[in-house]
Amino acid sequence: MVKAEVITIGDEILFGQITDTNTQWISTELTNIGIRTIRKSSVGDNEDSILEILAEAEKRADVILITGGLGPTKDDITKTTLCKYFDTELYINEEALALVTSFFVKRGRPMTELNRQQAALPKNSTYIPNHWGTAPGMWFERNGKVFVSMPGVPFEMKSLMTHAILPKLQSFFKTAVIHHKMLRTIGIGESFLAERIEAWEDALPSHIKLAYLPSFGQVRLRLTATGTDLAQLQKDTQAEVDKVMPLIANFVYGYDDDEIETVVGKLLKERGQTLATAESCTGGYVSHLITKIPGSSQYFMGGVVSYSNDVKMQQLGVSPDTLATDGAVSEQTVIQMAERVRQRLQTTYGISASGIAGPDGGSDQKPVGTIWIAVAGPDNTVTQKLQLGKFREQNIQFTSVYLLNLLRKQMLGI
Amino acid sequence: MVKAEVITIGDEILFGQITDTNTQWISTELTNIGIRTIRKSSVGDNEDSILEILAEAEKRADVILITGGLGPTKDDITKTTLCKYFDTELYINEEALALVTSFFVKRGRPMTELNRQQAALPKNSTYIPNHWGTAPGMWFERNGKVFVSMPGVPFEMKSLMTHAILPKLQSFFKTAVIHHKMLRTIGIGESFLAERIEAWEDALPSHIKLAYLPSFGQVRLRLTATGTDLAQLQKDTQAEVDKVMPLIANFVYGYDDDEIETVVGKLLKERGQTLATAESCTGGYVSHLITKIPGSSQYFMGGVVSYSNDVKMQQLGVSPDTLATDGAVSEQTVIQMAERVRQRLQTTYGISASGIAGPDGGSDQKPVGTIWIAVAGPDNTVTQKLQLGKFREQNIQFTSVYLLNLLRKQMLGI
Repeated sequence: MVKAEVITIGDEILFGQITDTNTQWISTELTNIGIRTIRKSSVGDNEDSILEILAEAEKRADVILITGGLGPTKDDITKTTLCKYFDTELYINEEALALVTSFFVKRGRPMTELNRQQAALPKNSTYIPNHWGTAPGMWFERNGKVFVSMPGVPFEMKSLMTHAILPKLQSFFKTAVIHHKMLRTIGIGESFLAERIEAWEDALPSHIKLAYLPSFGQVRLRLTATGTDLAQLQKDTQAEVDKVMPLIANFVYGYDDDEIETVVGKLLKERGQTLATAESCTGGYVSHLITKIPGSSQYFMGGVVSYSNDVKMQQLGVSPDTLATDGAVSEQTVIQMAERVRQRLQTTYGISASGIAGPDGGSDQKPVGTIWIAVAGPDNTVTQKLQLGKFREQNIQFTSVYLLNLLRKQMLGI
Repeated sequence: MVKAEVITIGDEILFGQITDTNTQWISTELTNIGIRTIRKSSVGDNEDSILEILAEAEKRADVILITGGLGPTKDDITKTTLCKYFDTELYINEEALALVTSFFVKRGRPMTELNRQQAALPKNSTYIPNHWGTAPGMWFERNGKVFVSMPGVPFEMKSLMTHAILPKLQSFFKTAVIHHKMLRTIGIGESFLAERIEAWEDALPSHIKLAYLPSFGQVRLRLTATGTDLAQLQKDTQAEVDKVMPLIANFVYGYDDDEIETVVGKLLKERGQTLATAESCTGGYVSHLITKIPGSSQYFMGGVVSYSNDVKMQQLGVSPDTLATDGAVSEQTVIQMAERVRQRLQTTYGISASGIAGPDGGSDQKPVGTIWIAVAGPDNTVTQKLQLGKFREQNIQFTSVYLLNLLRKQMLGI
C-alpha cells in the first residue's frame, strides 16, 4: 500500500484565518487511485517547522504532497526551504519563465523581479507547468520516494493535480485499487447499529474495512475494500452489502452520496408525484432541504409554516377543537396539518411536523423534544412520535430528516 | 507564547470522507486567548500513528488538543490508546456514567454495554462532562503540559471547548489578556469596505489588529486588542469603534455574536410587533433562520412557501394577471406576496422573495441570480432587486440575509 502525507504550509491556515479545503480534496483523490493518506499536517511559514515536517514525513511515507508557500512575497519560503532540505540551489527555468511572462503579457500587466523569481526552481526538481497561475509545480524524487510541491490556491492546485500529478503518481507507483461503498441509515443510533451487525462486522474479510460515520439523525456505514482488481473488489463489497442489508434494510435510505432529500426528490420525480409541507416546529427547514435541490420545483408545490395556532387554523384549516383538546403538539394536529395541506395545495403527499423544539416550552406530559410528524398520501396517513433532546437546532434537523424518511417509507410501502 | 498542537483522529478525515471544520475553529479560538497553534495533524484510527503523533506533539507543544475517536464502536480507539500512552488503565467514572445514563433515560431509549463503556475514563485524566452527547471530555497534565481529548462531533466539541476547556486553558497558562470586538456588516463588499476605512485602519494603535471575515452576504470586522488590562483594552477598542462607525453605520447591523435574524427578532420583540413570510426562491430558508431563534414564536406567526404559481395565487392571492404580465420574478409579484401575507396572517410586517436561484431557469431578461425582495409594513412597502451569482445555495443564503436586513432598515427607518 503506497502511503502519502499531505502537508499544508501557511500561517493563515494555522491560525484559522482561512479554511483548508485542499487536504480533504487531495486525500479523496489519492484514495481513489489507491494511495492511502496516513497523515495530514499544517505548519506555518517557518523554515525550521517545514524542515522538521519534511524529515518526519520522508521517514513515514512514500509520497509527500506539499501545498502553499509558493507566492512571490517574502513570507513565502517553501521553495528556498526545499532547496535547503535537498541541499541544492535555485535556477531560472526558461520554460517556466516563458509561461510566467506570457501570463503577465496576456493580462497586460508589468512583470516585477519578484514575479520573475517565480520561475526559479530547485536544481533537483522536475518542472510541472502551472497553466492556471504563476507558481510552478515541482516534482522531486529521492530513494524511490516522491515529493510534490504545489501552490495553495485551490483552483490552481486542483488543476495541477488532475492534469499532471495524479497521472504521474499512478504510473510511478503501480498503485493498489481501492473501492468504497457507503450505506446511509436514518432512525437507528450508532451503538444500536453496531450491536445489530456485530457478528457480520467481525466476519468481514481482512481486505474490507468498516467505518461508522454519524451525523445529525443519520449514521453512514462505509465499507473500504483494498486489492488489485476493481471488479473483484466491487463483487466482494456487494456480497457483504447483500449479507448485511437484511439486518438493517428498514434503516437504509440510500447509498454513497445520496441525501434523504435527494432520494425523496428522485422518487417523486420518477413517479410524477408532488409534495406539500405543513411545518410548525421545523419552521421551514424541511422546505429548505427540499428546495435546495435544483429542479425541486418539478415536484414541490410549496407549503405553510404554521407557527401560530391562528395560522394552523386559517391557512390549513386545523380544527380549533383539536387545538383546544389535543393541543398543537399532538397526533391529531399533525394528521390534520398533513391532510389539509395536501388537499389545499392539491399534491400527492402532504407532510407535517409539530413539536416542542426547545430549549423552553416543555411540560411534564410534553417535555422539550416531544415532536409529532405525519405523512398524508392518496391512501392513508401515517404518524410517528419522536422524543428528542433539548437542543433546538438539533431537534429541528433530526425532525426534518426523520420526516423525509417517513415520507420515503410511505412512498415505498415499507 | 503558549504553543498548541491540534490533532484530529479518524480515518474518515484522512480519506477525505468528511470535512474537518474542527481544527480551523479550534485554532481560531486558541488565537483568541493568546495561544499559538504551531501544528495541526490528522492521523487515522490506528494505535501506532496516534502514539507517534502524541509523542511528537508533547516534545513541541505546551498543550495538545485531540478530537475524534471517542465513539462507542470498535473503530474508535483514542481512549485505550491514551491509556497506553500514559501507561494507565480505564475505570468507570460514576459521574460520567450517571450523565450518559440520563442521556438515554431522557430519550426513553435502552442503554447498551457499548454506551456504558463511554463512561470509562483513563485513571490519570480529569473528567470534563459532555452535556451535549455521550462521549466525555478528558483533561490530562504531565510535566506542566496539557492534553485534552474531545469528541469529534463539531457541535459537541464546540460546546465542550466554549464552556469548559478554553476557560480552563486560560487559567492554567495565565495567557495574555485579549479583547475582541466584532462589527457585522451587510450590503458592502470586502474591498469597498477596506477602501472606505483605509485611513482609519492605517492609524490603528499597534496593540489593536483588524481582520476582515467575509461570509455569505456579510463582512465581519474583527478588532483584536492584546495587553494586560481588560478594562483598558475594552476602552481602547470602543474608541476605535466610535471612530469608524460614522464611515460605515449604514452597513453595520450588529456586533459580536449578533446575527441578522437575532437582531431583527430582538427589534420585533421589543416593539411587540409580528412578522410573516412569503417565500418563493428562498424556499423556507428565511423562515428557518427566524425560527431557529428560541422564543421566535412570540413574533413570528408563520408564512407561506409559495413555490408554484398556483400556491402564490391560492394561498396568498397574488393576481393571475400580474403573474402573466410581470412574471413570478418581478417587483409587482413580491409586493403582492409581502402585502397579502401580511394581511392574511394579520402581522405588523410581511416579507417576501422571488427569483431565479439557479443553476438553470434563467433568460436574457432575467438571468440566473435575478431576485426581487420586498418588505410590507404598516405605512408602506419597499422593494429591492438583487443580481446575484449562479450558485443556488449561495443565492438562497444571500437573499435571506439581504431580506432580513431590508426589514431591519425598514423598521429603523434608515
